[in-house]
Amino acid sequence: MPDQVEESSFSTRDTPAPLVDLAKITTRPSNRRRFLAQASALATFLAGCMRSKPEHEHEHEHGDTTSSGKVAEHSPQNPDSRTDTTLRHAMPTSSGTASTRGGGNIAFHRFDPVLPPVSSSRTTRLHFTAREVPIRVREDTVVAAWTFEGDIPGPIVHVRQGDTVEFTLTNAGSIPHSMDFHAAQLDPKVAFRSVLPGRSLSFTYKPKYSGAFLYHCGTAPVLMHMGSGMFGALIVDPPTPLRRAKEFVLVQNEFYLGPPHDGVAPFDYTKMLATLPDLFAFNGRPGQYQTAPIHVKRGDLVRFYVVNAGPTHPCAFHVVGEQFDTVYLGAPPGNAIHGVQTFEVTAGGGMIFEMQADIPGEFVFVNHAFGHGQKGAIGVLVVEE
Amino acid sequence: MPDQVEESSFSTRDTPAPLVDLAKITTRPSNRRRFLAQASALATFLAGCMRSKPEHEHEHEHGDTTSSGKVAEHSPQNPDSRTDTTLRHAMPTSSGTASTRGGGNIAFHRFDPVLPPVSSSRTTRLHFTAREVPIRVREDTVVAAWTFEGDIPGPIVHVRQGDTVEFTLTNAGSIPHSMDFHAAQLDPKVAFRSVLPGRSLSFTYKPKYSGAFLYHCGTAPVLMHMGSGMFGALIVDPPTPLRRAKEFVLVQNEFYLGPPHDGVAPFDYTKMLATLPDLFAFNGRPGQYQTAPIHVKRGDLVRFYVVNAGPTHPCAFHVVGEQFDTVYLGAPPGNAIHGVQTFEVTAGGGMIFEMQADIPGEFVFVNHAFGHGQKGAIGVLVVEE
Amino acid sequence: MPDQVEESSFSTRDTPAPLVDLAKITTRPSNRRRFLAQASALATFLAGCMRSKPEHEHEHEHGDTTSSGKVAEHSPQNPDSRTDTTLRHAMPTSSGTASTRGGGNIAFHRFDPVLPPVSSSRTTRLHFTAREVPIRVREDTVVAAWTFEGDIPGPIVHVRQGDTVEFTLTNAGSIPHSMDFHAAQLDPKVAFRSVLPGRSLSFTYKPKYSGAFLYHCGTAPVLMHMGSGMFGALIVDPPTPLRRAKEFVLVQNEFYLGPPHDGVAPFDYTKMLATLPDLFAFNGRPGQYQTAPIHVKRGDLVRFYVVNAGPTHPCAFHVVGEQFDTVYLGAPPGNAIHGVQTFEVTAGGGMIFEMQADIPGEFVFVNHAFGHGQKGAIGVLVVEE
Repeated sequence: MPDQVEESSFSTRDTPAPLVDLAKITTRPSNRRRFLAQASALATFLAGCMRSKPEHEHEHEHGDTTSSGKVAEHSPQNPDSRTDTTLRHAMPTSSGTASTRGGGNIAFHRFDPVLPPVSSSRTTRLHFTAREVPIRVREDTVVAAWTFEGDIPGPIVHVRQGDTVEFTLTNAGSIPHSMDFHAAQLDPKVAFRSVLPGRSLSFTYKPKYSGAFLYHCGTAPVLMHMGSGMFGALIVDPPTPLRRAKEFVLVQNEFYLGPPHDGVAPFDYTKMLATLPDLFAFNGRPGQYQTAPIHVKRGDLVRFYVVNAGPTHPCAFHVVGEQFDTVYLGAPPGNAIHGVQTFEVTAGGGMIFEMQADIPGEFVFVNHAFGHGQKGAIGVLVVEE
Repeated sequence: MPDQVEESSFSTRDTPAPLVDLAKITTRPSNRRRFLAQASALATFLAGCMRSKPEHEHEHEHGDTTSSGKVAEHSPQNPDSRTDTTLRHAMPTSSGTASTRGGGNIAFHRFDPVLPPVSSSRTTRLHFTAREVPIRVREDTVVAAWTFEGDIPGPIVHVRQGDTVEFTLTNAGSIPHSMDFHAAQLDPKVAFRSVLPGRSLSFTYKPKYSGAFLYHCGTAPVLMHMGSGMFGALIVDPPTPLRRAKEFVLVQNEFYLGPPHDGVAPFDYTKMLATLPDLFAFNGRPGQYQTAPIHVKRGDLVRFYVVNAGPTHPCAFHVVGEQFDTVYLGAPPGNAIHGVQTFEVTAGGGMIFEMQADIPGEFVFVNHAFGHGQKGAIGVLVVEE
Repeated sequence: MPDQVEESSFSTRDTPAPLVDLAKITTRPSNRRRFLAQASALATFLAGCMRSKPEHEHEHEHGDTTSSGKVAEHSPQNPDSRTDTTLRHAMPTSSGTASTRGGGNIAFHRFDPVLPPVSSSRTTRLHFTAREVPIRVREDTVVAAWTFEGDIPGPIVHVRQGDTVEFTLTNAGSIPHSMDFHAAQLDPKVAFRSVLPGRSLSFTYKPKYSGAFLYHCGTAPVLMHMGSGMFGALIVDPPTPLRRAKEFVLVQNEFYLGPPHDGVAPFDYTKMLATLPDLFAFNGRPGQYQTAPIHVKRGDLVRFYVVNAGPTHPCAFHVVGEQFDTVYLGAPPGNAIHGVQTFEVTAGGGMIFEMQADIPGEFVFVNHAFGHGQKGAIGVLVVEE
């Protein structure tokens, strides 16, 4: 039974999520660009509604904050975990914070997609720190990221079904953050509640099912926290391990970026609401595995754990020149289909894709929704002779 | 054998659906905003193409009607059911009608998501009335709805596989409407054809498969009628009922709203074509089950019948802090996968999600495509101790 | 073992796909239309980044080519097959070429959806020619198409699992093209590499799995080549054929069109990146099977092979008035679910849908994501008494 939650926190009244104020957005002039203007206005108001009056320490961070009293009446809250500690904090509409400034000296590094070995212990202790840091996601792009452990995605975690996961989140950022494990069965109001800056929260659980699970920050608005980099993958092996394979984890996400300040492009909540991304990536860097491919050998069974952090669009996963012998739609080793060219992993979901690497060569793996894949959800698997 | 259709109607020639006139939309100036201007022009022309010359009684309702002779040549028709009674009526591009005016005194009510018990009789008689009425979908928003039985969604219907459904539609609205049951096997040209204002149509069928089925108005353009509120869920039990559970029906839909007139925001066909929704909801009210959650008790098996009315976007259904023990991709009790964090219900589809409520707490259920979920497809399941 | 590749070609260094230059797109003024302006700028820059300096023989074909030195640094390449022969060619952002000019005298023809019989020989020899030609896709619309064998989609191919497919591509176009068969297991860097104008390439493979497979051009940017019409379906029968049926192939695609020149509307790469299509179609012509339906007889088993060429959006396949007795999610005859109203075929994927035509009538088949279906992914199946 998942169970222990320890921390020092407090509780205030929940408030329903503020949505768009239609009375305001619908007074635009009616002409041929009306729907575009309204879409724009909608996004602006949605952003505004999500934003409370900034506290003193934040008020210079968000230059385009509106001063509408009506907007300020809407208190931000946490629609995912219903944790309401965020009531006391400003709701930023851009991920730029004091700690994400100055991107010039940030180095690029490739995110290692290899699934780490499962621990020999039946208890996995994790201590993640939430940090707001600049990350170079491409040679020419540094983003103002909200992270677990300083990277996008957060660490790949590998456990077994029924193992005990003892987790602690420490918030070293400037706004509330939290943790929502899709592999956990826990009361989210308690375990996944927001943690104030400088505070910590611990909880413990035992994954009930095997599979490729997303974890993410669930602090309101969830779209903003997930969309700014706070996600990762937790892989749960079944009691009888799957057949030995070369195993890789690919977490897809979308990038919605605003104008850079001091060399750092913040994530932009208004664009997230508009759902038309600038870039996509596997493991946080658009196209990183084109430049530095993943390598296996002929004869290897290759297993991809594909987790889709979204926040919004699906991933139509495909390997050029190959088919998937098995795709697990649910918990492995059951719930499998066979002989599949492409299958979709929905936002907030995860699936496992297996292929026998019979043929040497360079195989592109891609989100075959090409208007998305072309923006960076693409890489290369090299099968060596 | 599904079978009887009774009414008094008439037949005219089918006409292919008018689509966009590219010769017109592509003469815009070429500059950096060209694609946006074209998108706008496209939507405007699409709307225009769908619109025939208004009849006298309607001509003051649609202020921005173009007077293009070419556009008027295109007669509206019903691409879904190929019923063409709409030929004699104007095609509105906004859902506002005489009967939807004046939203000030409309009260908000929560839509009860509880699956009603199945009838003890093996014949279910339904008489739905199509009505155009204002509905308060949020504290601050009244919409000009097209409905079955005066609400969004229409009534939840619960029958058994092989039962007889005797259905009558009476059109109390001002334009043609119709009914398309996804659970029926019937000639849609006959049974699902449009019913003129003041007329009725009856048909009878026996659901061949169990499952969570959408029903909706199929009058052209289907996008406009579905997008303005004419949909609901029909739940069909298998011959051997599924295990006893607390059962709930969630119908997801998108809102595309225009400027309010007299306090009522009409649904906007141009925005529906642009496919960038303002709001989402389960059962017609954005976020209603955050304010007034769904309650079950620890130990209950919880079964969600998730039906996606769209009109366009999928629903990545997820419960925070839980996993689905079973998701039925097809007719239950077969076609099941197990151990699932999130699964997608496509537009026009329905799936059944089961979870054992082992742990007390407040569990958010959400469309985990968060750019959509954040706009209102979100609620709370309270598991009481 | 798939195997022989013959041709005369060459190799240069791979270069990662150029994506968007954020430093440039993020300097727009910040105001209420900022996100729209940025979306526009993004698309423009994405297009610009994909475009290298035109060679002399091409430079008059692309009127809006920018002369940015930075942009020109990015060499185009092939992110799908990693074939880089395109390095030596300009990257057009519109499909209009010399050979696609003049649409006035192009006749419309319906694309026959009937699955051709499988060959009695166990070896299928295919010789496709890549051609850039104008095609009338509607009465009022001629598009500048990039094609296999002069049509959208390319020819329907029908083979058996384990048959030998001997394929030759000859490029009769003005820019590089290539072929990527989803049913093949081959090193894409070799077999699926780009073929220069006037050259040919041959390869041989044996499909490992049965199913409904997409084929498409994989030359960079893949989005542009797939989006301009270079795709088709290859149907692979299982060793024991499926039950006798009336079999039809439906390939869904999206249209993103620019302003017509000389009566021909080119496909527009900038709009493809914006992912908001103008039109949809089954088999290349929006709504063609509404005008000229598909016919079967009462008692027939009807089998639809639905292949989604995208490039981006899913197809929520549905038949009005019917349910699917079987949908094959993977290779038939296994991997089946039953009793399904609507199921989604992802971009780059294919599925098989079966229904028993018990009832005579006119049954609309449609992409039930109606904001898409309403734009042309719709047709009629007539079940004759």
